[in-house]
Amino acid sequence: MSMKKINPDYIKRMREIVSTSPYFELLSMKLVDAGVGYSSVEIDLAQKHLQPFGMVHGGVFSAIIDAAAFWAVYPGIEDPTAGMTTVDLKLNYLAPAASGKLIARGSQIKLGRTLGYAEAEVLDEAGKILAHGTSTVIILPGKALETDPPLPPKFME
Amino acid sequence: MSMKKINPDYIKRMREIVSTSPYFELLSMKLVDAGVGYSSVEIDLAQKHLQPFGMVHGGVFSAIIDAAAFWAVYPGIEDPTAGMTTVDLKLNYLAPAASGKLIARGSQIKLGRTLGYAEAEVLDEAGKILAHGTSTVIILPGKALETDPPLPPKFME
Amino acid sequence: MSMKKINPDYIKRMREIVSTSPYFELLSMKLVDAGVGYSSVEIDLAQKHLQPFGMVHGGVFSAIIDAAAFWAVYPGIEDPTAGMTTVDLKLNYLAPAASGKLIARGSQIKLGRTLGYAEAEVLDEAGKILAHGTSTVIILPGKALETDPPLPPKFME
Amino acid sequence: MSMKKINPDYIKRMREIVSTSPYFELLSMKLVDAGVGYSSVEIDLAQKHLQPFGMVHGGVFSAIIDAAAFWAVYPGIEDPTAGMTTVDLKLNYLAPAASGKLIARGSQIKLGRTLGYAEAEVLDEAGKILAHGTSTVIILPGKALETDPPLPPKFME
Repeated sequence: MSMKKINPDYIKRMREIVSTSPYFELLSMKLVDAGVGYSSVEIDLAQKHLQPFGMVHGGVFSAIIDAAAFWAVYPGIEDPTAGMTTVDLKLNYLAPAASGKLIARGSQIKLGRTLGYAEAEVLDEAGKILAHGTSTVIILPGKALETDPPLPPKFME
Repeated sequence: MSMKKINPDYIKRMREIVSTSPYFELLSMKLVDAGVGYSSVEIDLAQKHLQPFGMVHGGVFSAIIDAAAFWAVYPGIEDPTAGMTTVDLKLNYLAPAASGKLIARGSQIKLGRTLGYAEAEVLDEAGKILAHGTSTVIILPGKALETDPPLPPKFME
Repeated sequence: MSMKKINPDYIKRMREIVSTSPYFELLSMKLVDAGVGYSSVEIDLAQKHLQPFGMVHGGVFSAIIDAAAFWAVYPGIEDPTAGMTTVDLKLNYLAPAASGKLIARGSQIKLGRTLGYAEAEVLDEAGKILAHGTSTVIILPGKALETDPPLPPKFME
Repeated sequence: MSMKKINPDYIKRMREIVSTSPYFELLSMKLVDAGVGYSSVEIDLAQKHLQPFGMVHGGVFSAIIDAAAFWAVYPGIEDPTAGMTTVDLKLNYLAPAASGKLIARGSQIKLGRTLGYAEAEVLDEAGKILAHGTSTVIILPGKALETDPPLPPKFME
């Protein structure tokens, strides 16, 4: 894992860019925290998240686990010009939900030169586990998050 | 697999109920076909499906694979009063997409008394594979899809 | 999770039965510890575990993860007449190994009335993570481990 | 997938090397066929493959699925100096077995420049499906299978 100190301004802007990206807004999903090896993602549940049986659709859980695993690994990539994409996702639905809030915590398990691997758990507001999964990611040199204006430097001097 | 012949009116109404359920509408996802052991689910991609790197978010692929696997198994459950829920989802992202249409085909691999298992592949309009995954489901006696008015009989006399 | 106190004699005999079962002996795999919600499984690596590239075969990692996840959940099933079988296995190979010892720690994440879910990590003797995975299990009423002589009572009075 | 024609002598020697490697011999596992995009792997079941409940251990199924997926992809790598390793494995156990033969068929779903992805199904001799899974692999330049004497050329002129 990175020995460099990450720039809090970078994380702040990264969180804003991610939380205001289209699919995050569509799902009311927010990257509420992130750092080297961890992330926290939340969704305020609403009617729009339900499947025809009246419960939260599996795709909501898979989206928040995908996001929490991804943003737990991305901050720790030492090459500031590198991007990352998801290779796979594996998850179990452990209990249904119909309202309230989904709180996902992502934790990096491994970050190598090419591949990363992280897990994420999804809890409700009472701390009950609703879903858990893992995800493999691959580092893409030269494909860093691009923004206008550019992000602040990723690491502190 | 079921020896009974499924009622086409049941499938027609089931497809309508599913395609107009909240999360399907949020994602512009449609259950375009389904029968004993198979399904077809489509999404017309738009700006709303994108992540911050400008590509379709992984959660869109996981939602369509979850849905295609689920609705490939549900029609074949012989007990018309039984419902079903997803136990797990495993998928690989094989190529990115940014626009066009996602076409998922679900295929049941096994349906036992308690558990089912299906796979789904996601193609673009040119037939290129974009994602592939599998899902485990569990049958829930007494938890069939409830609608007002009720669904037509599931099986033909 | 079980409120009942598990019988240490049951665990001791269970560990012996498991560790001397054929596939455990074939792989030199030992259930070195287990209790409600956790397990520890080890393999002393030898030439026999290698694939044609000279490293430990993936099937060794998948066997120890399957075993560690399974035996982390089995002790906590409250019905002493119930057995259990594995529904699925998902794992990532994180670093290769060629010799030494594999140490797997299984941890139950959820145990419901029908399904259970656990994770396991595999470390080498220096504590480096080599593999990680999860597994879904299903409880089978009336299919408890049978032995001659019978196992001691599972729970304390 | 490769446009080059693979050398049948390469495949023949590759199958021999794989089938006589230590873990294949330990499990009585044989790579009975392979080519660009497919493989066939078999195990003659014996007492040694059983877990304490008297059925084939999950680790036998995971080993044969890992192997069938791997050897379905390896032949199609165009760079003859490249090796490959498994990134992950995902599988479902669909029916138990206690004797007879396991027959696994591996099929490549995608082979990119860095990653590959394949599925494998395990059947018994009557054609009943016993297990199914998928695996992600990564190409390792310069890490081809090394043998003494060297393998024949991988591709025909």
